Amino acid sequence: MSEQIFQDDSVYDKYRWIDDLGGWRRSHHNNELTAANMGEQVCLMGWVQFRRDHGGLIFIDLRDREGLTQVVFSPEHNTEAHERAHAIRPEYVVAVRGTVRPRPEGMANSNLVTGEIEIVVDEWKLLNTSDTPPFPIEDRVEAGENLRLKYRYLDLRRPALARNFILRNKAAQSVRRYLDNLGFLEIETPVLTKSTPEGARDFLVPSRLSQGDFFALPQSPQLFKQMLMVSGMERYFQIVKCFRDEDLRADRQPEFTQIDIEMSFVDEEIVQDMAENMVRTLFRETLDVNLPEAFPRMTYADAMRDYGVDKPDVRFDLKLQNVSDVFEGSGFKVFAQASLVKVMRVPGGGRLTRKEIDDFTKFVEIYGSKGLAWIKVKEDGEWQSPIVKFFSDEEKSRLAERTGVQAGDILFFQAGQADIVNAALGNLRLKVGERFELIDENAFAPLWITDFPLLEWDEEDKRWVARHHPFTSAQPGQLDTLTDNPGEALARAYDLVLNGHEIGGGSIRIHTPEMQEKMFAALGIDEEEARAKFGFLMDALKFGAPPHGGIAFGLDRLVMIMTGAKSIRDVIAFPKTQRGTCMMTEAPSQVARKQLRELGIRLREKKEEQ
Amino acid sequence: MSEQIFQDDSVYDKYRWIDDLGGWRRSHHNNELTAANMGEQVCLMGWVQFRRDHGGLIFIDLRDREGLTQVVFSPEHNTEAHERAHAIRPEYVVAVRGTVRPRPEGMANSNLVTGEIEIVVDEWKLLNTSDTPPFPIEDRVEAGENLRLKYRYLDLRRPALARNFILRNKAAQSVRRYLDNLGFLEIETPVLTKSTPEGARDFLVPSRLSQGDFFALPQSPQLFKQMLMVSGMERYFQIVKCFRDEDLRADRQPEFTQIDIEMSFVDEEIVQDMAENMVRTLFRETLDVNLPEAFPRMTYADAMRDYGVDKPDVRFDLKLQNVSDVFEGSGFKVFAQASLVKVMRVPGGGRLTRKEIDDFTKFVEIYGSKGLAWIKVKEDGEWQSPIVKFFSDEEKSRLAERTGVQAGDILFFQAGQADIVNAALGNLRLKVGERFELIDENAFAPLWITDFPLLEWDEEDKRWVARHHPFTSAQPGQLDTLTDNPGEALARAYDLVLNGHEIGGGSIRIHTPEMQEKMFAALGIDEEEARAKFGFLMDALKFGAPPHGGIAFGLDRLVMIMTGAKSIRDVIAFPKTQRGTCMMTEAPSQVARKQLRELGIRLREKKEEQ
Repeated sequence: MSEQIFQDDSVYDKYRWIDDLGGWRRSHHNNELTAANMGEQVCLMGWVQFRRDHGGLIFIDLRDREGLTQVVFSPEHNTEAHERAHAIRPEYVVAVRGTVRPRPEGMANSNLVTGEIEIVVDEWKLLNTSDTPPFPIEDRVEAGENLRLKYRYLDLRRPALARNFILRNKAAQSVRRYLDNLGFLEIETPVLTKSTPEGARDFLVPSRLSQGDFFALPQSPQLFKQMLMVSGMERYFQIVKCFRDEDLRADRQPEFTQIDIEMSFVDEEIVQDMAENMVRTLFRETLDVNLPEAFPRMTYADAMRDYGVDKPDVRFDLKLQNVSDVFEGSGFKVFAQASLVKVMRVPGGGRLTRKEIDDFTKFVEIYGSKGLAWIKVKEDGEWQSPIVKFFSDEEKSRLAERTGVQAGDILFFQAGQADIVNAALGNLRLKVGERFELIDENAFAPLWITDFPLLEWDEEDKRWVARHHPFTSAQPGQLDTLTDNPGEALARAYDLVLNGHEIGGGSIRIHTPEMQEKMFAALGIDEEEARAKFGFLMDALKFGAPPHGGIAFGLDRLVMIMTGAKSIRDVIAFPKTQRGTCMMTEAPSQVARKQLRELGIRLREKKEEQ
Repeated sequence: MSEQIFQDDSVYDKYRWIDDLGGWRRSHHNNELTAANMGEQVCLMGWVQFRRDHGGLIFIDLRDREGLTQVVFSPEHNTEAHERAHAIRPEYVVAVRGTVRPRPEGMANSNLVTGEIEIVVDEWKLLNTSDTPPFPIEDRVEAGENLRLKYRYLDLRRPALARNFILRNKAAQSVRRYLDNLGFLEIETPVLTKSTPEGARDFLVPSRLSQGDFFALPQSPQLFKQMLMVSGMERYFQIVKCFRDEDLRADRQPEFTQIDIEMSFVDEEIVQDMAENMVRTLFRETLDVNLPEAFPRMTYADAMRDYGVDKPDVRFDLKLQNVSDVFEGSGFKVFAQASLVKVMRVPGGGRLTRKEIDDFTKFVEIYGSKGLAWIKVKEDGEWQSPIVKFFSDEEKSRLAERTGVQAGDILFFQAGQADIVNAALGNLRLKVGERFELIDENAFAPLWITDFPLLEWDEEDKRWVARHHPFTSAQPGQLDTLTDNPGEALARAYDLVLNGHEIGGGSIRIHTPEMQEKMFAALGIDEEEARAKFGFLMDALKFGAPPHGGIAFGLDRLVMIMTGAKSIRDVIAFPKTQRGTCMMTEAPSQVARKQLRELGIRLREKKEEQ
């Protein structure tokens, strides 16, 4: 039943063979045996983390998904088992049968669950050998990410990474249990669906049976879940892959996982209560963390005013202030002529070096800022700043009064267009929070953002676009606003923010054809276009669509925050690189001409692009 | 807060408006209130199944996902509410507040949970109107399937169809709970992966960031789950979409859902015990059905011998018999010269009409048969048959003895190539089972099929192909057979069959590079090709791959059997037609030239195909 493998001439040749299981069964995993099991006969299996020879004995740390157990081969106990054990190398796969005994006096390891015991081997099997891994299997990471992604199956052996997937599974099952208990049905929606080029770019799938036509991979199951509400399913959820063919930024993946939820006969309060309680249950069940009984709430307008962003990290307290009025008619023209001047006071920020301020200046340029004005207040009260000489005494005193600035502080300013001012200061706030360690890394600060604008102006296309999506309802009484003053209309939309990340977002949907038509009109989508893209939705709304709404959570990001992972790639088993490729399988790759011919497509030749 | 909608000049004009929820909350669903709730104030919401006016009152049956409740508008109770109720039409969405009261003497409906009560309305809201649906929402189906698929959101309102999705959700959550309890981790594998044209045709996804290259949608996560075992995840599962671009037969869908399972440190027994217990738990939890404590087992060879197929429906007892030896040297040359002659005795089959036998003859032609020989035994014992005149008395008596044929029976014969003989008789057996109602429609008969051949000969490509897949291990001691006599090698593979459907299949995988290389060699895949397609697998096996194996279940088919649905499309929320299209969204569809340009592809022009 065993296959002999003779691979080289080494002294251990006669011990190079691979056994099959031969009916052996594990009795325990490797994070289980303690002093309570002393004297028991056990069978363990796993990978060799480490081998050392000491005092005529051979020791190995045997690793599995759960942990480590020390195993000893002793010539007195079983001569042949001990002799063969000289062949063992790191990452070999072995099965051992033996007896649990105490480690010798003074050799216990209190860092391990199994630290008091060891297994002395009666017999063992070599289940597989291993070449030397291209990098050591340990939590300290030194190899580059591309090498680790190529050998992802080895990187995933690192306990720190493996733990992320144990938690991810726990999180997904907690969410499922919670929703299942509330009568939500998990219903699968199609992956091969229709291209509706609103929002991000679709991944396309050429159809073979209908040559020249294409499926698209869903950016979200939005319309299908609305169809399920029209179907009377009432409570739907799905943990589902979604796809966006975007240029990848640091923490984006072309495929990502969404906890997608929709309910009928609801308003904002019902959806938010359900979602909030889901997140609370999730944190309690998977991390033993109790989130607040009622999550704080903030309007979009207040978030932009105080934090400059729509997903404020409220684990720390810095706020922005609008001081446009202070500089009305000021001698400092940059401020006087700006439509918006905002300031952020950083208590104790006076100790920032010139170099640090220069780095911050470069940082805000990412957001379109043309510079970073600042005032340091020295210990003697003197204002040190390149700009303060342009200020009148009254401006200085009003600024001091409004900001409450004190000796040792720094004030940072942005002046100009609102979107740039807010983005620059709002993101600088996060930098400052890190620099001064204002953020409690163990805190979880959830926050609802509400009352979003329904539309936003797309400068490039010169038209209004839906801020959430075109199926989001306007707030009651705003139908006329939508037509007369689109930028002012508020949406029945809400985001759930956690530690400065948007983890969930949703809305109450439009459920009448009348409002849907008004919405398409506001977006400049004419009837023909609306029918071609969303005809089935407009039909469905005519046949008794119930009031409905929902929310979707980004599972990857949520798990990233929960595990404290630095990158979303650390919570996805086989992630793509930032170039959108899989280092392990080398996807995407060339395919046979025959495959393309069957699909009725061919590659554009380079010359056509010129 | 309510929007007035004036749509026509009807007498009900003044009652045409749509309210929003206005803070109303459902107190109960529509399959909940009974005599125990008498006198309670309740709030119900749902769709109007039916309205009737009787004795000055207006009655509606209010439907939601759970059931029906009778609602009464009485002019004495609330004049305005009653008057407005004249506007109500079928499929309108309404919310009512009222009081639970007994139905009048003799009006109780014992078919409904809520049949003893009705709600007399205090106030109500119209949440939406509805056009007249293109077909009535009722379980009796008369509309054609394409119309129903176009208005899938209405078809799904039919309680019989909706129940399938309630059961499907229950089934999926039962499986998840079972596997979660055993320490399986649900780990998501990529949807955008690499094309490896073994097996069925891949769906391709052109890459924009790497023009000219393609991703493929996975036909199964086979290699990823093996990578997870090499990663030390030990127990993996996933309920996951898989994709095959095949020409669609009756019960195939281009995307389908698999319960995908893999385990380390296992042999066949461990996987099968786990799987069997999963299915038993599933049936008990979702259908309250107890499957046998140990599922029957049958080798592939025995299944082919006795049933002609590798997924026998053992709910009924007919078997095939090999009678080649009876006709050795027979005067009936068709039988004498055939490599295989098999017979199926159908007790009581003598009453089949000539027309029915002709239909069966046409039926077996589907499987390549050139005809269907038969012998009827009349009540007087006479053998009636077009072929019996060619038989010797000894052949007749041996045949009678071997088959035990009796008056009133029929014998069906197939002679020729084994694959055609078996397929024809094996499938005829199912037809006969239906015709004579031999099948207990309420029975569930699970069966393990084991000891499959590892390879099968592909007549078209003139080479051996993997019967299961190229990663399936040969049985112990068969490595030489694989090289010397490939057709004889047996696989460590197993299928789980239920009522004649293959619901699950799996194997113990190859876990050493040596056996994997031998396998590729047997399949005629040279080293270069193996490296290009499966390089990462071959690498992974070198770094301590544990012994591992698994199984995958087809969830759609399983739920189809469990619900008694006639088609897989009845257990998929938004299925494709047999032409691979979605009637509702009209996918696949044309896309903008710009999209194709970005992907670096273009459509083949017709002229190039000539």
